[in-house]
Amino acid sequence: MSKGVEVIDIGQKFGLFSEYWHPRIAGELNDSYVKLVKFKGEFVWHMHENEDELFWVVKGTLLIKLRGGDVTVRPGQFVIIPKGMEHMPVAAEEVHAILLEPKTTVNTGNVENERTVEAEWI
Amino acid sequence: MSKGVEVIDIGQKFGLFSEYWHPRIAGELNDSYVKLVKFKGEFVWHMHENEDELFWVVKGTLLIKLRGGDVTVRPGQFVIIPKGMEHMPVAAEEVHAILLEPKTTVNTGNVENERTVEAEWI
Repeated sequence: MSKGVEVIDIGQKFGLFSEYWHPRIAGELNDSYVKLVKFKGEFVWHMHENEDELFWVVKGTLLIKLRGGDVTVRPGQFVIIPKGMEHMPVAAEEVHAILLEPKTTVNTGNVENERTVEAEWI
Repeated sequence: MSKGVEVIDIGQKFGLFSEYWHPRIAGELNDSYVKLVKFKGEFVWHMHENEDELFWVVKGTLLIKLRGGDVTVRPGQFVIIPKGMEHMPVAAEEVHAILLEPKTTVNTGNVENERTVEAEWI
């Protein structure tokens, strides 16, 4: 393998942590991070003022509540929530998702509360 | 569904085209595109001077030749090729991959030849 080029196995990385709503960083490219996250239950309504955010589901069914109507994302599907759009992820059962977003993105966006966490490398 | 928020089904999108080495755009976020591409055979050695590029394999086995040693990427795995690093994708059998890269990225990077194509929305 070349120095600095690592093949990342998503399933293996998901096996390394169990906390919900605590994104882990699995890669960086340009100004963005690739993050892995496990969801279960309801998050909080929030938005990212300056960052579009991609949600890619690899396990489970993710409901994303939106003010104008909800979307449901299943394994093999993704959705992009544009900057400025309020949203709230909801996972009735455990969901594994990949997030792609600028490095500046905070998980709770414009809201700071007990759900606000910093992503760490995994 | 909210206006402008579309759930993208990767398998459905891959069913809409058959050409190899001709990326299709399935989403945009921030300054980047999410592209779908089918590989078969060898591409050309090239590099992207200013853009890191992510390859995510969803079907088949992708060999990426690198000057310092090759990497093999299988379904459920991804690799990020940093800007400035020469690489050549090779697919012994058909590969379906997701690319994530800045909108400015040209498929053949610093090389312009008959393999150079523009990505279109799908």
